[in-house]
Amino acid sequence: MSPSAAVTDLRRQVHALHTELVRYGLVAWTAGNISGRVPGEGLFVIKPSGISYDDLTPESIVVCDLDGNLVDGDLAPSSDTAAHAYVYRARPEVGGVVHTHSPYATAWAARNEPIPCVLTAMADEFGGEIPVGPFALIGDDSIGQGIVATLAGSRSPAVLMRNHGVFTVGADPKAAVKAAVMCEDVARTVHLARSGGPLTPIDPDHIDRLYHRYQTVYGQR
Amino acid sequence: MSPSAAVTDLRRQVHALHTELVRYGLVAWTAGNISGRVPGEGLFVIKPSGISYDDLTPESIVVCDLDGNLVDGDLAPSSDTAAHAYVYRARPEVGGVVHTHSPYATAWAARNEPIPCVLTAMADEFGGEIPVGPFALIGDDSIGQGIVATLAGSRSPAVLMRNHGVFTVGADPKAAVKAAVMCEDVARTVHLARSGGPLTPIDPDHIDRLYHRYQTVYGQR
Amino acid sequence: MSPSAAVTDLRRQVHALHTELVRYGLVAWTAGNISGRVPGEGLFVIKPSGISYDDLTPESIVVCDLDGNLVDGDLAPSSDTAAHAYVYRARPEVGGVVHTHSPYATAWAARNEPIPCVLTAMADEFGGEIPVGPFALIGDDSIGQGIVATLAGSRSPAVLMRNHGVFTVGADPKAAVKAAVMCEDVARTVHLARSGGPLTPIDPDHIDRLYHRYQTVYGQR
Amino acid sequence: MSPSAAVTDLRRQVHALHTELVRYGLVAWTAGNISGRVPGEGLFVIKPSGISYDDLTPESIVVCDLDGNLVDGDLAPSSDTAAHAYVYRARPEVGGVVHTHSPYATAWAARNEPIPCVLTAMADEFGGEIPVGPFALIGDDSIGQGIVATLAGSRSPAVLMRNHGVFTVGADPKAAVKAAVMCEDVARTVHLARSGGPLTPIDPDHIDRLYHRYQTVYGQR
Repeated sequence: MSPSAAVTDLRRQVHALHTELVRYGLVAWTAGNISGRVPGEGLFVIKPSGISYDDLTPESIVVCDLDGNLVDGDLAPSSDTAAHAYVYRARPEVGGVVHTHSPYATAWAARNEPIPCVLTAMADEFGGEIPVGPFALIGDDSIGQGIVATLAGSRSPAVLMRNHGVFTVGADPKAAVKAAVMCEDVARTVHLARSGGPLTPIDPDHIDRLYHRYQTVYGQR
Repeated sequence: MSPSAAVTDLRRQVHALHTELVRYGLVAWTAGNISGRVPGEGLFVIKPSGISYDDLTPESIVVCDLDGNLVDGDLAPSSDTAAHAYVYRARPEVGGVVHTHSPYATAWAARNEPIPCVLTAMADEFGGEIPVGPFALIGDDSIGQGIVATLAGSRSPAVLMRNHGVFTVGADPKAAVKAAVMCEDVARTVHLARSGGPLTPIDPDHIDRLYHRYQTVYGQR
Repeated sequence: MSPSAAVTDLRRQVHALHTELVRYGLVAWTAGNISGRVPGEGLFVIKPSGISYDDLTPESIVVCDLDGNLVDGDLAPSSDTAAHAYVYRARPEVGGVVHTHSPYATAWAARNEPIPCVLTAMADEFGGEIPVGPFALIGDDSIGQGIVATLAGSRSPAVLMRNHGVFTVGADPKAAVKAAVMCEDVARTVHLARSGGPLTPIDPDHIDRLYHRYQTVYGQR
Repeated sequence: MSPSAAVTDLRRQVHALHTELVRYGLVAWTAGNISGRVPGEGLFVIKPSGISYDDLTPESIVVCDLDGNLVDGDLAPSSDTAAHAYVYRARPEVGGVVHTHSPYATAWAARNEPIPCVLTAMADEFGGEIPVGPFALIGDDSIGQGIVATLAGSRSPAVLMRNHGVFTVGADPKAAVKAAVMCEDVARTVHLARSGGPLTPIDPDHIDRLYHRYQTVYGQR
């Protein structure tokens, strides 16, 4: 198969977005990965397994079908490919998935504790707390199922997988990266806040109003 | 309207100052914004909404009147424009306003707790504690009113808005950025200090003497 | 002696890897060092003592025999050379050794406390907790003995030496650097997690399964 | 007066060393300063007051006599000049002085608490705990007197001034900068260590042996 123009373009985008994971300190060594759905082709592109961020190129990003089988590329796909594939199968509106072990968010996951919504920026982006999904072993659909089931009960585009790390989803890879960046940012601020004393809650009705406004008014239209 | 030379120059300054927010880690993704008053023209310039810091250019900085209406620019202004506009209307001596969700300062805001003045650098810049303003929803004058009312009872150029983040003011945009940088710096040091045991207070009279000296002697005259 | 091509190549590798210690914030000023065994020559290369990371060059990396005697190079070898030499004598399969005082890992060492395995990424790389070795003075084989004895009872490629810092081993210098980077990453995440409340354990059988999978499946084969 | 070659050279050195304060995160905005004694000339060079680190040049570094009077330079000297001058008058063997508000070290100072020596790297560089000096107002010799009196009872080249920050001394400016970098490094590690539980002490005799070895054996001779 010769990759379509859409695949070539998406490889370039997904490659470039990986530099944001490095810039924001969300990843160490080769951990973490971003994928993006190829619209209408039943495919997604994803980081290869165990490759240094310095060595990533657009061409090194591999192409998989929605069962996670390698379709194009010279390298083995990310060891988290099955989880990404499951999310794309279960959630047709999702166009991008990100996985990190970003430290503050993963600290909440190591306690099996959701991040409470005590920041207006968190209401804006996540519409409430960031939930925790179940412990799941890598190697089959368990992680994907845990992600999808946990996000189904939430407005949040981010889920903390217990003892593991963060998965985020978005309409496209950039939106999923934004959710990963904001997840670590609020995980840190709420951690710092609570370590100094009791948190001040936000009225749930205010969370709703902040979320709806941000989703419809923020940014350029 | 064709922008005056003062507007063009201020766009360049305000654009350049945004890189300081990034350098000091005060902002994540597109959050945060800086504005600057155009002296004598009833206008201010401000960051456009939801634009990446990498993509900001001097030309992309938009111009608003003091009611927050867009007067010049191709992009929608920051979603915090109403708060900036309120401050410029209420405080004629203010020439610059900065807003961030910097993590340590916002952690104090999430507890609704002012930052106590236990550092000489804090006495120098803030003249006492950094106060907390009320919870306020975005969308009308509530945030601006909260900023102005809280700063009215303080020498501090910084206010923590409850569950939200930091607003700072200054005679010009650079002074407001300095206050935002120093606010996060002292928010972090005092957080770290208190997490290790009881703080040692500074005598209020010493705070006064430090503040008056710094405001009149520090720097180049 | 004129250095072999293998030595010249290894000097280049080990020099380049030192930049990773700086990039990940594992070292301050001139602290920290990396060594690499020259296969089949009874030699290893190591950082010179007290040289700034900015001033390191491939040529400045010195060559020692397995008793730690300088064999080639213009500078005195690292003051930790005896510890590296001991590890190479005792563990023939080790091809690289790294030493740092990285802050979060060293904080656990200052409490004489192993890092509990509560993260899947930690099960992957370390196969369980990261153990603590004894207090040992620099100047003879005490540190090397402590490293080897402690690692003998563990799958971990990293050991925290009490009140001192981190030593890691690997099949080659890059693998030892990876272990040093991941050690600090998990030391930080587990520190943050526990500072917020009780940790959620991982079932020991799951740790085994994660470790075996990662050691055989992750990355490119 | 036309500056001697020694002054010109020292201005270049001291200018370059200021970039280390930025690199290690010891300073925010224009805070912090480095000075260096001009051997045999009864002069020292120091950072000008309130100048951004980006705007510093070798030529902008000013020259003062040992009473702190400006002797050469276009800018007003650092507001901490009197403290540096006092140290140079009282301690003829001191060739460099550094002042910062580095966050972890200043957090200990805000509690009026010395940093206990629980790390071998701390024994190496500081020979014991890092002491705290008295609260002192800027504007006369009080800070200088506090620095000198506190360091007189210690092997440490660093002193935490209560509610203020760090002063370090060295045989030359580079040694004083090293002490400032290491002071923040150990302040952070010991802070992190103690926030997780009780510290494990180091035997005082071991601290002595580590200190004496490091002061005579470490680095290139």
